[in-house]
Amino acid sequence: MNPQFPVHTEAEVMFYDTDCAGVVSNIAYLRFYEVARTRLTDALGLTVTEMTASGLFPTVARTEIDYRKPARLGDRLRVRAWVERLEKVRMHCRFDMHRIGDDEALLSECRQVVVLVQLPAGRPRRIPPEWVALVADDGSLA
Amino acid sequence: MNPQFPVHTEAEVMFYDTDCAGVVSNIAYLRFYEVARTRLTDALGLTVTEMTASGLFPTVARTEIDYRKPARLGDRLRVRAWVERLEKVRMHCRFDMHRIGDDEALLSECRQVVVLVQLPAGRPRRIPPEWVALVADDGSLA
Amino acid sequence: MNPQFPVHTEAEVMFYDTDCAGVVSNIAYLRFYEVARTRLTDALGLTVTEMTASGLFPTVARTEIDYRKPARLGDRLRVRAWVERLEKVRMHCRFDMHRIGDDEALLSECRQVVVLVQLPAGRPRRIPPEWVALVADDGSLA
Amino acid sequence: MNPQFPVHTEAEVMFYDTDCAGVVSNIAYLRFYEVARTRLTDALGLTVTEMTASGLFPTVARTEIDYRKPARLGDRLRVRAWVERLEKVRMHCRFDMHRIGDDEALLSECRQVVVLVQLPAGRPRRIPPEWVALVADDGSLA
Repeated sequence: MNPQFPVHTEAEVMFYDTDCAGVVSNIAYLRFYEVARTRLTDALGLTVTEMTASGLFPTVARTEIDYRKPARLGDRLRVRAWVERLEKVRMHCRFDMHRIGDDEALLSECRQVVVLVQLPAGRPRRIPPEWVALVADDGSLA
Repeated sequence: MNPQFPVHTEAEVMFYDTDCAGVVSNIAYLRFYEVARTRLTDALGLTVTEMTASGLFPTVARTEIDYRKPARLGDRLRVRAWVERLEKVRMHCRFDMHRIGDDEALLSECRQVVVLVQLPAGRPRRIPPEWVALVADDGSLA
Repeated sequence: MNPQFPVHTEAEVMFYDTDCAGVVSNIAYLRFYEVARTRLTDALGLTVTEMTASGLFPTVARTEIDYRKPARLGDRLRVRAWVERLEKVRMHCRFDMHRIGDDEALLSECRQVVVLVQLPAGRPRRIPPEWVALVADDGSLA
Repeated sequence: MNPQFPVHTEAEVMFYDTDCAGVVSNIAYLRFYEVARTRLTDALGLTVTEMTASGLFPTVARTEIDYRKPARLGDRLRVRAWVERLEKVRMHCRFDMHRIGDDEALLSECRQVVVLVQLPAGRPRRIPPEWVALVADDGSLA
């Protein structure tokens, strides 16, 4: 795998990430993973500036998340993101999230299938050949 | 005031509206008020279908919210919205939120200044004369 | 299956559900499904009032979502939720979302694994035997 | 004013911060300001770890926001937060937000009234005398 993968992002759990069960809402994890996915497409050469200019947007076609342990207010989180596999029009992304600190506990794992969609028509576009070159065949981290 | 004002919407507090202090997050109130504002512009004749077709979008220029009493998971809420005053390019909206049930407690009050913005240029547009007719001069509910 | 399943909820796409790609954000679907999940646990006899009183909260352990077609501002959505299978401590829920209207298009499908967790200790609790009775063996809708 | 004020935080606009009008949703600004408010209470010596341990939580009683210019996907934002004035039980906070970069445009300004609430009773608590010492009498930045 290209040495720039996986990309790492960090976050800290805010009030708005939690719910009245006292832990991070299952919904908030998707925000943490979206930040990491944005850094992943950056690393592949598709910045949000280019998305806006070209109308070519990465679109999530499928998400799987496992919630392993609860995260809490003030926890510092490390999210890793990488490309598991590229197909003609589908990018298979992987993510995991650990708590930063003494236990470095694995909090969650995620997979997403992303398709590049050309707006305004909404047509899927082929994964760029440069991405295939950037992501080595043996790109799996697991 | 036109008898269709104020508009009324109802909502129920969900987990995602709360935070780990056990009550509704200050941020979630803006979602409840946005639903009411959408019904208010509907009542004035600007539906979201037309917004999308014409590129003319109501844009919030200023918000004031007072949080009077906490709302909690499962509370049923009644939100009222009305137009307080129309200026050349600014619509002054008012909102309040009560708990439905025994106490009918006043939970929150809100004012928003809304401007109609024409996309993609982003220019403010005059408030339509039909709106002025719909909203009587003595339109204040308070 | 008990005739009260699947439960049905309806929603309308608001501005805050969309993102700058012009369609509903992948994250917002989890809010629509959470409303349906709350109605599902209601139908099983666990209301949010009881959750708050007892400290017994349904917790999402895993989510899978397929995004089939984009939903847009103003779309009216019908979400159905049902229990696919009950294990000792895990409830397997299924959801789907259709656009209300001419096309009745299937927009999304979802599966969630839910565990009942007793706060503050955070221990998983057995699925209540009454739930097993409510959910027939042949409970699968698909 | 104590030299540690105003506190500065930075953020980058993500997809989930925007809506289908192509700019940052009015609701998302409250998340950016909540991060800054958390850093502000940190600087005053009340960390989220202590909040969770003691049940003493800062609660927003009133918010005013002016939206000056739209923020867009990918914009980098600098938020400043400071204490304008302390009363017996009310802390008056001020915030502003600038775009990082060539124009350094002022995007938004905000005021919030914060009350310290002791859970689970929900009673307001006096502002700690140490805070008064930390925030000079002439603490206004404007």
